[in-house]
Amino acid sequence: MQWVKVLGGVVGAAALLGLGIIVGHFAIPKGADSPAPSASASQDLDLKILETVIEQLDANRIRENLRELSKEPHLATTPRDEALVQLLLQRWQDPESGLDSARTTEYEVLLSFPSGEQPNRVAVVNSTGAILFSCRHSEENLTGEQGGPNVVPPYAAYAPPGTPQGPLVYANQGSEEDFKELQNKGVKLQDSIVLTRYGGVGRGAKAVNAAKYGVAGVLVYTDPKDINDGKSLPNETFPHSWCLPPSGVERGSYFEYFGDPLTPYLPATPSSFRLNSDNASGFPPIPIQPIGFEDAQVLLCNLGGNLAPADWQGGLGCDYNLGPGFRSNGIFPEDGQVNVSVHNRLELRNSSNVLGIIRGAVEPDRYVLYGNHRDSWVHGAVDPSTGTAVLLELSRVLGTLLKKGTWRPRRSIVFASWGAEEFGLIGSTEFTEEFFRKLQERAVAYINVDISVFANASLRVQGTPPIQSVVFSAAKQISAPGSSGLSIYDNWIRYYNRSSSVYGLVPSVGTLGAGSDYAPFIHFLGISSMDIAYTYDRSKTSARIYPTYHTAFDTFDYVDKFLDPGFSSHQAVARTAGSVLLRLSDSLFLPLNVSDYSETLRSFLQAAEDLRVLLEQHSISLGPLVTAVERFEGAATVFNQRIATLREGTPDPLQVRMINDQLMLLERTFLNSQAFPEERYYSHVLWAPRTGSVATFPGLSNAYSQAKNTGHEPAAWAEVQRQLSIVVAALEGAAATLRPVADL
Amino acid sequence: MQWVKVLGGVVGAAALLGLGIIVGHFAIPKGADSPAPSASASQDLDLKILETVIEQLDANRIRENLRELSKEPHLATTPRDEALVQLLLQRWQDPESGLDSARTTEYEVLLSFPSGEQPNRVAVVNSTGAILFSCRHSEENLTGEQGGPNVVPPYAAYAPPGTPQGPLVYANQGSEEDFKELQNKGVKLQDSIVLTRYGGVGRGAKAVNAAKYGVAGVLVYTDPKDINDGKSLPNETFPHSWCLPPSGVERGSYFEYFGDPLTPYLPATPSSFRLNSDNASGFPPIPIQPIGFEDAQVLLCNLGGNLAPADWQGGLGCDYNLGPGFRSNGIFPEDGQVNVSVHNRLELRNSSNVLGIIRGAVEPDRYVLYGNHRDSWVHGAVDPSTGTAVLLELSRVLGTLLKKGTWRPRRSIVFASWGAEEFGLIGSTEFTEEFFRKLQERAVAYINVDISVFANASLRVQGTPPIQSVVFSAAKQISAPGSSGLSIYDNWIRYYNRSSSVYGLVPSVGTLGAGSDYAPFIHFLGISSMDIAYTYDRSKTSARIYPTYHTAFDTFDYVDKFLDPGFSSHQAVARTAGSVLLRLSDSLFLPLNVSDYSETLRSFLQAAEDLRVLLEQHSISLGPLVTAVERFEGAATVFNQRIATLREGTPDPLQVRMINDQLMLLERTFLNSQAFPEERYYSHVLWAPRTGSVATFPGLSNAYSQAKNTGHEPAAWAEVQRQLSIVVAALEGAAATLRPVADL
Repeated sequence: MQWVKVLGGVVGAAALLGLGIIVGHFAIPKGADSPAPSASASQDLDLKILETVIEQLDANRIRENLRELSKEPHLATTPRDEALVQLLLQRWQDPESGLDSARTTEYEVLLSFPSGEQPNRVAVVNSTGAILFSCRHSEENLTGEQGGPNVVPPYAAYAPPGTPQGPLVYANQGSEEDFKELQNKGVKLQDSIVLTRYGGVGRGAKAVNAAKYGVAGVLVYTDPKDINDGKSLPNETFPHSWCLPPSGVERGSYFEYFGDPLTPYLPATPSSFRLNSDNASGFPPIPIQPIGFEDAQVLLCNLGGNLAPADWQGGLGCDYNLGPGFRSNGIFPEDGQVNVSVHNRLELRNSSNVLGIIRGAVEPDRYVLYGNHRDSWVHGAVDPSTGTAVLLELSRVLGTLLKKGTWRPRRSIVFASWGAEEFGLIGSTEFTEEFFRKLQERAVAYINVDISVFANASLRVQGTPPIQSVVFSAAKQISAPGSSGLSIYDNWIRYYNRSSSVYGLVPSVGTLGAGSDYAPFIHFLGISSMDIAYTYDRSKTSARIYPTYHTAFDTFDYVDKFLDPGFSSHQAVARTAGSVLLRLSDSLFLPLNVSDYSETLRSFLQAAEDLRVLLEQHSISLGPLVTAVERFEGAATVFNQRIATLREGTPDPLQVRMINDQLMLLERTFLNSQAFPEERYYSHVLWAPRTGSVATFPGLSNAYSQAKNTGHEPAAWAEVQRQLSIVVAALEGAAATLRPVADL
Repeated sequence: MQWVKVLGGVVGAAALLGLGIIVGHFAIPKGADSPAPSASASQDLDLKILETVIEQLDANRIRENLRELSKEPHLATTPRDEALVQLLLQRWQDPESGLDSARTTEYEVLLSFPSGEQPNRVAVVNSTGAILFSCRHSEENLTGEQGGPNVVPPYAAYAPPGTPQGPLVYANQGSEEDFKELQNKGVKLQDSIVLTRYGGVGRGAKAVNAAKYGVAGVLVYTDPKDINDGKSLPNETFPHSWCLPPSGVERGSYFEYFGDPLTPYLPATPSSFRLNSDNASGFPPIPIQPIGFEDAQVLLCNLGGNLAPADWQGGLGCDYNLGPGFRSNGIFPEDGQVNVSVHNRLELRNSSNVLGIIRGAVEPDRYVLYGNHRDSWVHGAVDPSTGTAVLLELSRVLGTLLKKGTWRPRRSIVFASWGAEEFGLIGSTEFTEEFFRKLQERAVAYINVDISVFANASLRVQGTPPIQSVVFSAAKQISAPGSSGLSIYDNWIRYYNRSSSVYGLVPSVGTLGAGSDYAPFIHFLGISSMDIAYTYDRSKTSARIYPTYHTAFDTFDYVDKFLDPGFSSHQAVARTAGSVLLRLSDSLFLPLNVSDYSETLRSFLQAAEDLRVLLEQHSISLGPLVTAVERFEGAATVFNQRIATLREGTPDPLQVRMINDQLMLLERTFLNSQAFPEERYYSHVLWAPRTGSVATFPGLSNAYSQAKNTGHEPAAWAEVQRQLSIVVAALEGAAATLRPVADL
């Protein structure tokens, strides 16, 4: 109809027609949006297909994927990272086992690298400036894999260049409290170099906190107590065990936010507006450099000053003193200083995401997203290649069924390999910025499998409450690795569990912070998200994370020998995540249980009761919050009843779609872009970062904590009331979304 | 399934069950979300039903509605306003002609009223303070309807109280340029009272601009030249013609933003966080008071100083001088001053919206909204009751078909009667805040019919481009009032037309500002919106608006005798708006043409070419914008082709739904909550307020204008680039939304 009008038009019509023909020819994929031959609107999850997928996920193929992915370092935007882009494209475009289509999207983003010409250096110098000791520039080449030009030397990405020098002080984990304690003890911090250990607070926060006290430069190391259960000797560590060798250094991003630093809220296309890097925020204010515990030991065991508190002591085999400066009977002169030379450079680089798509047969405009990053710090066998190896095996199995014509999902599946995650979730964040509305309107859920195996004891899942039920269903169906005969679910509950007021004892699903690419999906877009992995037996190790994290020792052999020999934990994650993916993409009714949010809300409400007295003193009532939680619970319960009733009948396709839209969009109702104006991207009022000590709604907790500290500052208490109103409005809006749709 | 789990649970299960039963019993409307008996997923617009509706819309019933609605003043939240709430509820709950359901939603909002005890006063005083002249406190009771306790005296809502006094200055329309000109001419503004005429800039802006020059108080009047085509004598004006009588005073809100002033972005529930009114922004900074031209004449025709410029002269029958102070040969002493006493009070009041719903048979979760405000300044026969009279007649005709079982729309229809619009679109804005996500996800379009008849010459429509086609279709089908034999469309094109590059000569559809309740729908929620009315023959009058606007003379007789005798223009609007409503609610494919956005984008792009030289001097390229517009055009063209192809076949219900979701959600893709942080609610990157002179994308135009004024300020040019990138990202996102859905 429109076509006739266009042809009947005047100026511009011919141009439009021409454009239309060109676009029509090149831009419409064959069969796009037309129904699949066998598509039926009532197409539901096929348990046989699900069984087939689970069976076909092959541990050995995952192992071979991992070998290939981790055979060379593939730092973001390096030639090997680009080679892996091609590998992914090739796999996803394979005629026998590929997907419907695959493409890359490229962004021009600001990364940070050490200088090729001037290595970063940490040295002890005497009063004449002579170098008495230098920390290693690179890790020890223990197995032949830790050397070579493609191993990036240890550095703190986004740390500014500079060559500060001063007496050394030990500052524990570099938290605000740590620096306060040093100040209270009279340790001079101004113009000092502080040595901190990883853990406690974020990487960048150590420099931010230090700078407030006039500190000139910061060192960070990994203490054997925190990562190796105390082991520190060469013969106790890799390649003799999974422990971190003395020369291992954790690299990492020290950027405070996520996404490309220069293009907040805009996709980093080449032509995009960019902040001047001098105006960009979130970089460490002072130079900072990571070192290994071998070097940290030399520095720390020779420190002078008073003995550090008991909980500041670590596993380096000596008493940790506070400094400043070196002790009199040590190997350095007392007035020896530490010189930190950082020569990092900011560079605009092109980073690619790879996207692979299986078109949904019935609802192609509903997307189940499954992703992991591709870039590593060095070989990145564990991080991220254990995840990518699983991703490739899962896409191979599904692609093969697809190409054989055996199966096509009800909804579209989007596989993603994100670029530059290690620098701050950059590829995934730019993707969410580029397709903001489209994803908000159409994305059912995001499944993240970054490091798929931290250790081989138990499943570990983080996610928002609605994904609990589908993960449980998947985990109950699959056998746990090993000879226990337990399901993944029954094994999981032995390691990580909680007592639910609704279900009794269940495995505990953790909450989502900003540790991997799920962050922009949940916090910025409000898409129900999860992160799935296999992990530790906490009774056997207190390691902060797997020991070779972000070091040159994170190699294929490390995984193959120590982390998951036989790759059965990899297979377990592939099966679990694959089952979750299929359930989300194929079930007639989306397997998200919105009622499971009620427990979260109740626990937040319960915690808020601790604030009641002081709130009431400031004329702030919790009554509306109580009512809002009750309304949500009521609406969710009735909504689930409605689904149950529909399931019993033969619901028509539009009825199912309407229910599914409510299920999909519930998470979006918790977004409020006005809630946290200072917190880049964070707009989910239930999962924004909480700095307040009370485990309630984060905005409320933070504002309360702030107001309590200020005493009776009216503006601070007004902000508490504002945050409370934001939560109430979000919960009332969520309840409204779940009510019968014609019931405004 | 969930139910079994809940019953099998532990603590809390019984409580949840009980809650579920209660909610289930009381909260689920019978038949909610179940298919209508005759519902078919392919249900399309029934042209016979459409004909029936058009025929049954009765001019005389509209007239009777208007008589009832306007028989008493119904200022927001007064008893008569509340009585009309009950009238609407009763009509919409009528068993013979009502809707499926109707309810009220109440908000506690900040309004502003003159003091009951201390009337506002404008007086001329001599140097001893003796009163020489007082302006009227109320309009002349010419027809017996302009008196009584329920006629609110003329005032400027939200003007602060105060009693400034000073020499009088004439400041034309009170624009920035007007004050600059006075300053250039050496007229002393500090501590003066300025007299301004309505028009040119917004009401509140006159006080904002004046305050910057140290002005102490502002008067505003309506010049006969601007409203009465120069007529000013009692025997030329109402009740002898439609012209404004000398004592008539335009009331109005002087609040700069819209929505409840104390609860921006939050629904104004009783428990909501409220700004302290001292901290609220957007109120006039100095006292301001409107007066009639009868009083303005006494002041202005006695002013001294130099003669005002030619285009500052008006229709009061004397030369307008600038002041300051009075002329030597006038009726006041030269040093006579004007004293303005404003005693307005801010009050928290409960204001109601009334919502009436017809449940959709096939897609109850898609809403077509149709609304108008209910509150008036005095009797409000024209504003808003001409709109409400049409609303009631349309809902009666549709309700009757519904109750008879003859018809049920495909989608849900939501009728709304908004409260407190006159104070700043408050009821509608609070509604959009309360149901933010739900409306963003489900609303197909918003139809606003506020003043339905300004005059009886021609249809006048404002809206976003996608609504053009459905309005044209409706207007072509209906006969214009009078004996011309023309359709409404053919009559319309005679009065208001433009040359379209696609269609040739077509009626021109205006753009949406913030003049009525559509503002929060389009600017805050990104819902395709329109405003429909009958209006002037501009060759016969240059009146700024209908002459008795916001005065006590806006009465039933005024409409009945002068504006629309016979109510045929009312009927024409009812038929047009009714046809648009039915087409939107009943058509299988939504009758929104996204391709019609291409013309807007082309014209914005064309205008941006004027900026090119200076942009390029600052290294800002228009290339990405050109590409983005082309991509949008291409995607829209292909998308329309796809619809045409689907129309030819028998598309399945989900295919139609997917297309309709793309149509519905396109408008949302233009929202960016980061684009205009200073502009409350405005987030539509194409329709935000434009202050720059170049008629291109508003953010770009404004930033460019600012940057040009600052010269080479890098931050200002960076903002230009940022705004350009925001537009490019929005257009690319819009194109992505229109592409085949499985084509990420």
